[in-house]
Amino acid sequence: MGIYRDLGRDFDEWLDWVVREAEVYDYGRYPIKGMGVWLPYGFKIRKHVIELMRNLLDSTGHEEILLPLLIPDNILAKESEHVRGFEDQVYWVTHGGLTPLEVKLALRPTSETPLSYLESLWIKSYRQLPKKYYQFVSVFRYETAATRAMIRVREVTTFKEAHTLHSTYEDSERQVAEAIEVYSKFFRELGIPFVISKRPEWDKFPGAIYTIAFDTLMPDGRTLQIGTVHNLGRSFTIAFNVWIHMPDGSMDYGWQTSYGISERVIASLISIHGDAVGLRLPFRYAPVQVVIVPIPAGPEEVWKEVTSLCNGVAEELRARGVRVVLDDREDMTPGDKFYYWERRGVPLRIEVGPREVRSGSVTVVRRDDRSRVSVRLGELAKAIEAIGEEYDKAIKTEALEAFGKRVLRVSSTSEAERAVADGYIVEMPWCGRISCATEAEIRVGGKALGTPLKTAEREVEGLHCPVCGDRARTLMRFSKRY
Amino acid sequence: MGIYRDLGRDFDEWLDWVVREAEVYDYGRYPIKGMGVWLPYGFKIRKHVIELMRNLLDSTGHEEILLPLLIPDNILAKESEHVRGFEDQVYWVTHGGLTPLEVKLALRPTSETPLSYLESLWIKSYRQLPKKYYQFVSVFRYETAATRAMIRVREVTTFKEAHTLHSTYEDSERQVAEAIEVYSKFFRELGIPFVISKRPEWDKFPGAIYTIAFDTLMPDGRTLQIGTVHNLGRSFTIAFNVWIHMPDGSMDYGWQTSYGISERVIASLISIHGDAVGLRLPFRYAPVQVVIVPIPAGPEEVWKEVTSLCNGVAEELRARGVRVVLDDREDMTPGDKFYYWERRGVPLRIEVGPREVRSGSVTVVRRDDRSRVSVRLGELAKAIEAIGEEYDKAIKTEALEAFGKRVLRVSSTSEAERAVADGYIVEMPWCGRISCATEAEIRVGGKALGTPLKTAEREVEGLHCPVCGDRARTLMRFSKRY
Repeated sequence: MGIYRDLGRDFDEWLDWVVREAEVYDYGRYPIKGMGVWLPYGFKIRKHVIELMRNLLDSTGHEEILLPLLIPDNILAKESEHVRGFEDQVYWVTHGGLTPLEVKLALRPTSETPLSYLESLWIKSYRQLPKKYYQFVSVFRYETAATRAMIRVREVTTFKEAHTLHSTYEDSERQVAEAIEVYSKFFRELGIPFVISKRPEWDKFPGAIYTIAFDTLMPDGRTLQIGTVHNLGRSFTIAFNVWIHMPDGSMDYGWQTSYGISERVIASLISIHGDAVGLRLPFRYAPVQVVIVPIPAGPEEVWKEVTSLCNGVAEELRARGVRVVLDDREDMTPGDKFYYWERRGVPLRIEVGPREVRSGSVTVVRRDDRSRVSVRLGELAKAIEAIGEEYDKAIKTEALEAFGKRVLRVSSTSEAERAVADGYIVEMPWCGRISCATEAEIRVGGKALGTPLKTAEREVEGLHCPVCGDRARTLMRFSKRY
Repeated sequence: MGIYRDLGRDFDEWLDWVVREAEVYDYGRYPIKGMGVWLPYGFKIRKHVIELMRNLLDSTGHEEILLPLLIPDNILAKESEHVRGFEDQVYWVTHGGLTPLEVKLALRPTSETPLSYLESLWIKSYRQLPKKYYQFVSVFRYETAATRAMIRVREVTTFKEAHTLHSTYEDSERQVAEAIEVYSKFFRELGIPFVISKRPEWDKFPGAIYTIAFDTLMPDGRTLQIGTVHNLGRSFTIAFNVWIHMPDGSMDYGWQTSYGISERVIASLISIHGDAVGLRLPFRYAPVQVVIVPIPAGPEEVWKEVTSLCNGVAEELRARGVRVVLDDREDMTPGDKFYYWERRGVPLRIEVGPREVRSGSVTVVRRDDRSRVSVRLGELAKAIEAIGEEYDKAIKTEALEAFGKRVLRVSSTSEAERAVADGYIVEMPWCGRISCATEAEIRVGGKALGTPLKTAEREVEGLHCPVCGDRARTLMRFSKRY
């Protein structure tokens, strides 16, 4: 498999190493398979990412709520397609103390069912619509497949699920477009490149009319689904009697959408920007944006000046709202400190030694390319902002360009097979028949991700489905997939 | 039972009414007993309260983490006193899909056991100590008693649990003092009055050496435990082998404390400041701090000026960071709007009508006493800050004074009985014998809350235990209790 990003070691191994060494997430030691612990540093990354999503949702009229974790059996089972999609992988609570419960309770796998039940109580009129709820919660899936830190877990601890209700299908379609826009902004802001695909029929969310998915590419050349948007139609509103007064005086069922992201976003953030040394976090979302490292010097007086300059710089930056750490540990060399903070992905390092004291300037070192620049003290705060922004732009551009090279148009299944094996996402002409797509999956040795949202007729003009030879109607994407 | 706060109706009824009408929390309609839904407005109150606690904890060196929800049976059972305290009220997950699990999994009732397990892996040396972790999570108790919105629930959705580890008992004692200080600041900031008591031996946390509790008084004259601080000693570090390198080169078990609060804080905030009309939220923590209500007027031009003035005021305040809503709904009278926002506890209302337009000023109305003041437009932003602060001071003082009158020193059990029946907290001389305290509980018709943290010898000099007649050593508090 081709190397999409050079991490100095196998990606699986690298990810385990980096989340442990950078103290992001303790995985594999908690005594339940597929469940991990967010450590203080990782918790802060998670917090900044959540904050970003909250701002995007709040500013588009979404309202945050919190539903109970448990869903009674009979509620989960109300929408038949949905329950069939989840029943094999639901954790069941059957006892309270030693008492068997009358109705068994599911740990929520997702919240379409309880929320639709509540909407049937809360929403009476089209005047209340559209209604856009969201929550950040843990969801549970009893995965039988091999689990992976943050990527495939049994407790998804950072599930953002949004659920919307509308009086018309058209409005639900507008909402799908809004959700796609929100997620696109979110991933772009974090520098996570993606393709958006309409998932094939056989791979949509249980109960949905259709599912739109965001996929990114992990360093091992496999795509990771990092966000989904579902148009649920009226499956759940009919099952739960979400019955609404319409403008024309009639009563009718509402229309719903739902869309979700999970800690896979953080797995992507880490994997897409990281390098062989460790994390490289975006300046705007790093728990520590700047670390100040004093460089020891000979005479006591100079050392005092260095220390006092470090303190001054830390104070000034803190006052400007920069998240800064002054690493004045005495039992570590500067070199060890450099490595310690580089591993943790701190974007900028300020070095202060005797030379800096003499020159009235400090040295700023960027995490991405280790480029160094000397900055005069009077200009430091502004310079840090500017360098931070340049750094963000640089790591985002790097990620975007690398990703762009990894999406290939192909016209034959053999070409597709080679590219997918090498860790590419391929786009292949497709006639639209399910049988051709499934046959192509076998020949290509990858999974069908779905079709681009918009494929201009021209783009597939004159092209043919490499499986049946018929005229192509659109493109189908394939890749190795998590 | 005496009325501590006049809410115009029975407290139980009032609380159900207010959380429903102010759209704080949907309780009793979710199809599982004892589990409720945080609605958008309530969620925001909760968010501000959580934010306050986070700031207090972060600024005292606590680190936020997130542990899995599920605890394996064998981990929960490791500390024998602890598991005996919880085993009757734990929810058990027994199946993943249709597959019975090999080890049954508890929904966390609290996290001393899994965290101690992890600390045995994470902490090796006294140099890493003290270590102060906390998390905001849901915890679960299969309550068999009657449940009450936010007060006694089966899913406590806003449990803040802190867990600390120390190399000496002395340091754990210092930590208990710090926790008491943090909680005291927290409740004072919210204007929730409290007494701090060392709980009687028979009422401490399962596994702790002792438990310190914060109790407030609800409007019906019953005390509500709103925070607890436990010195856990070495119960859990011994059970889980949290074995630490000490400064003298020896190995020994660490010392722990833990302390928690829950959404009872929000129940208290609502109940202690609320009145017959609805909520009265503190200005600093209200989701909406100011509502602007335009007062309709005759001619079209004037109405345009009113609207434009309202928009200008809203913009100006927003720019200053005030959380403001301009209520320009056309299908509601100003009076209905006043009531709507008063019920939701919005601290300040700005009325803008033709008179205001003419005079270049607006009318600011306080939620607590409905006092009105005219403020010139140029001074509005500053005035709002000042009035908001005065309002906060007023509702806090009111709560504090009312509470102060409700804590009574008594010298006989008959006196205590009358006072407790009337909704007071009483402090009664006590010889220190458990048998006398339990006998007193029966005679007084209340529960023993525990002893004040510091009772000067002088305070009980010459006083006698009213049960046995022996010399009093301290005071014991009694009350009706939730």
